[in-house]
Amino acid sequence: MFELRLVQGSLLKKVLESLKDLVNDANFDCSATGFSLQAMDSSHVALVTLLLRSEGFEHYRCDRNITMGMNMGNMAKMLKCAGNDDIITIKADDGTDTVTFMFESPSQDKIADFEMKLMDIDSEHLGIPETEYEAIVRMPSAEFARICKDLSTIGDTVAISVTKEGVGFSTRGDIGTANTVCRQNTSVDNPENATVIEMEQSVTQTFALRYMNSFAKATPLANRVTISMSSELPLVVEYKIAEMGHLRFYLAPKIEEEEEIAGQVETGNRKETKSKLEKKPEVKPMVVEESEPDKESQLKLEIKFEPKTNSEVNTLGETKCKVESDDYTLVETKPEAESNGDICTLVETKPEAESNSEAQVMDVE
Amino acid sequence: MFELRLVQGSLLKKVLESLKDLVNDANFDCSATGFSLQAMDSSHVALVTLLLRSEGFEHYRCDRNITMGMNMGNMAKMLKCAGNDDIITIKADDGTDTVTFMFESPSQDKIADFEMKLMDIDSEHLGIPETEYEAIVRMPSAEFARICKDLSTIGDTVAISVTKEGVGFSTRGDIGTANTVCRQNTSVDNPENATVIEMEQSVTQTFALRYMNSFAKATPLANRVTISMSSELPLVVEYKIAEMGHLRFYLAPKIEEEEEIAGQVETGNRKETKSKLEKKPEVKPMVVEESEPDKESQLKLEIKFEPKTNSEVNTLGETKCKVESDDYTLVETKPEAESNGDICTLVETKPEAESNSEAQVMDVE
Amino acid sequence: MFELRLVQGSLLKKVLESLKDLVNDANFDCSATGFSLQAMDSSHVALVTLLLRSEGFEHYRCDRNITMGMNMGNMAKMLKCAGNDDIITIKADDGTDTVTFMFESPSQDKIADFEMKLMDIDSEHLGIPETEYEAIVRMPSAEFARICKDLSTIGDTVAISVTKEGVGFSTRGDIGTANTVCRQNTSVDNPENATVIEMEQSVTQTFALRYMNSFAKATPLANRVTISMSSELPLVVEYKIAEMGHLRFYLAPKIEEEEEIAGQVETGNRKETKSKLEKKPEVKPMVVEESEPDKESQLKLEIKFEPKTNSEVNTLGETKCKVESDDYTLVETKPEAESNGDICTLVETKPEAESNSEAQVMDVE
Repeated sequence: MFELRLVQGSLLKKVLESLKDLVNDANFDCSATGFSLQAMDSSHVALVTLLLRSEGFEHYRCDRNITMGMNMGNMAKMLKCAGNDDIITIKADDGTDTVTFMFESPSQDKIADFEMKLMDIDSEHLGIPETEYEAIVRMPSAEFARICKDLSTIGDTVAISVTKEGVGFSTRGDIGTANTVCRQNTSVDNPENATVIEMEQSVTQTFALRYMNSFAKATPLANRVTISMSSELPLVVEYKIAEMGHLRFYLAPKIEEEEEIAGQVETGNRKETKSKLEKKPEVKPMVVEESEPDKESQLKLEIKFEPKTNSEVNTLGETKCKVESDDYTLVETKPEAESNGDICTLVETKPEAESNSEAQVMDVE
Repeated sequence: MFELRLVQGSLLKKVLESLKDLVNDANFDCSATGFSLQAMDSSHVALVTLLLRSEGFEHYRCDRNITMGMNMGNMAKMLKCAGNDDIITIKADDGTDTVTFMFESPSQDKIADFEMKLMDIDSEHLGIPETEYEAIVRMPSAEFARICKDLSTIGDTVAISVTKEGVGFSTRGDIGTANTVCRQNTSVDNPENATVIEMEQSVTQTFALRYMNSFAKATPLANRVTISMSSELPLVVEYKIAEMGHLRFYLAPKIEEEEEIAGQVETGNRKETKSKLEKKPEVKPMVVEESEPDKESQLKLEIKFEPKTNSEVNTLGETKCKVESDDYTLVETKPEAESNGDICTLVETKPEAESNSEAQVMDVE
Repeated sequence: MFELRLVQGSLLKKVLESLKDLVNDANFDCSATGFSLQAMDSSHVALVTLLLRSEGFEHYRCDRNITMGMNMGNMAKMLKCAGNDDIITIKADDGTDTVTFMFESPSQDKIADFEMKLMDIDSEHLGIPETEYEAIVRMPSAEFARICKDLSTIGDTVAISVTKEGVGFSTRGDIGTANTVCRQNTSVDNPENATVIEMEQSVTQTFALRYMNSFAKATPLANRVTISMSSELPLVVEYKIAEMGHLRFYLAPKIEEEEEIAGQVETGNRKETKSKLEKKPEVKPMVVEESEPDKESQLKLEIKFEPKTNSEVNTLGETKCKVESDDYTLVETKPEAESNGDICTLVETKPEAESNSEAQVMDVE
């Protein structure tokens, strides 16, 4: 028997609205510690983790750890039927293959029960090591969303640069270039509007804007966003969920050679492609993506994390996941013999390990 | 000469906005008593009646009963050009085949005249008997609209169940089931928010959600909606129009065998069709509908009312239509020899009666 | 070196939003007097002029007259990235072929630089003579926009009629006719809502509604619009831009024979085309338009202005352009031998004059 009751039901509605376009199907992991999720996006490039700690619920009961596989689109459809002020209850009886969502209006005059079949989803739990990031930016989430949206009208990728002075976002496209800087500012009237930078060394990395825009769909969840970066590590974009947990997005950086960026010279309105770029084979490791075929710079990337098989670190919250940083494997994929050495991939390397996905939840707090 | 002047012109704008997608062409009947309309929807499944009593207008003049055939889409286009605060005048001179809509801004500084050709529309006036319904639900119109919209994201039909405790709305679709209950509640702070049930016996009927959603487009007309149901009778969804009249929608229930509903078992995300369902021929009585061919439960229904030829009851409001309940004919259509007896149809049975459609308006108040 | 700084950056955002659908590419002319633009719409039927006087900017520096060719869509994309409260700086260094837009948030915490390549656009500067118009209407811009939008649901063209009593807008289409009159009203509480008519003689002219709707996209720029008309001259629709200048749209009237208008008789829902109309060849002078081929009344028009080659009147604001009214040439184009004499065109007649487009800016104040 699993049951949770969330008075602020709109939180769950917002979580699903932010996930439904990024992730198709995912396993929710229910344990005594909380309700959590870890899933790759449908093109296997980005990773999402959700944590809602049991203490945050008005009522939380989990007799034994269970995994509930759900289609995010269908779950979002059902949660859309909850009013913004409704109390949401999620219930799953032992031995059934359905989950029930109950929505109660604040006045208790309207009660809705939605029942959805659960799915069997094949997934690996990845151990996400607790990492010290070289640069951490905390800024208003709406501003981050606005910048990503603005830049994507100009280009496809964003270079994020963190220095002591501030954080810069740059792009380049057929019609020109754009460069937005948010200065560190801790002395604003409202601390919600501050841009705060915590860093050991300055970092610059480049990411696909289309993923950044997907992540920014979580903006309604929190007024603030935290962006954590280290060279050669995936970036983390984190939204706190009230006092209960967080929604985190991981995305591997694109690694582009200097000349390649310089090669994208606009002449009038056409992008001139240097012949040297044409010699490069497009790298496609198992990843299906809807990118236009003529964008040579759209290198396909795969985030890969080592799956954890050590059971001590597998149960959510019971044992803190204290993995050494060398546990975190950065793999260069060489899809064809002549690898050009420019892809940073973090690969799930042991799919054959046959780990038990049921009780395998990582706490990365 | 016919002329009416409506200070609260937005009412007429809202009426047309609710009708334009449901009804293509319709005859407006103008008599000394009021301005009214009776029309089938374009797929001949639902019936709409509108009544605006003459007393409700600032000015109302109708020298003789006339019928004005109008295309609802075109009329809606013209009324959309009226401002929300405009005074609307409708005028038709004798012997012309046009109608004029005049819109005056409150300051009288802007005056617009729109002229539209009238159409000859072949239609029968149906006598709608004054019926005692077994169950009547009065509830906030926005809540009814929200429930219909929510359920239609899950399924195609809604089973409405009225008991003393409340009214329930249930559906079932590929992704799961939904069941919303509004409890009877007469002691709310604001009587506009009450859900009030008046019933002789509990009733459960199933309807196509796509029609319910069409009806709910009238929500801006009134804060409250009245749903009247009797077993084997069409449901009535009524919106009051200020102090002037009403907009009513009639829809015949779908009659489905128990096994049929049970046959729609979802397995994962696919709907499993029991072979017994495939043996049933799809019933199609003169009705063209855009439903998907594989939904066996989408039985085609036709509402049929006996047309009234008795002139005493035909003139709007002059003689109250006191028809006995056995006047109301429930007809089983048998499109092919092997009728499976599961359609509740109310058929317009005397199209050959050559009734004079001009002065034939029913008052069903 | 050219640099301007506009504290009320939203003005420039609104200017581009109103232009981007009408004009593809245009040359901005920068001189000591101001920042201006003159461009034909993409189908070469309407003419737009923009003037932002140098005094209106917080900072304005223009070392020598320059012309900056820009794609309006791309420029609009970049300006969309400016916040509504941002201060906008436009900068172009000598000898470069790029322009930089800088957006500073009011708090100065966020600064964005957008760089766009300039284009070489072939264009003639037209001398627009200072004309005394026979009728000038000043009215609320929102009301003008609403009327154009409303009428375009009924017909394709609008006949604008100015008399002492007021200004009338009429159209006719398949579904009927519409006629809106705004009465002259100078004694309203709020002068912003007044409709003021200044006229020597009454004028009636017919215009394509699709252009009027394009012009009305400038409505957010100003609460009031000025419509100037003279028989046989293009109409001018003017929006003032704060204290800085204006955005003006010029459109030649359609000239239709009386019989032709009468020929568009609606019968029911179909437009009956008189056979006499079919005998008329459709006039197509170099103009590409997406109008439906069966609308005989959609005559192609071309606005033509004499280009000014007299240098005294060419520099923006330095010498007021005092052209006699006979300088203004109204040309009848005869695309084929059998001209039917019904097109009023104002043609740019001297493209071979090889005028220097750089310093050739007309002040038509």
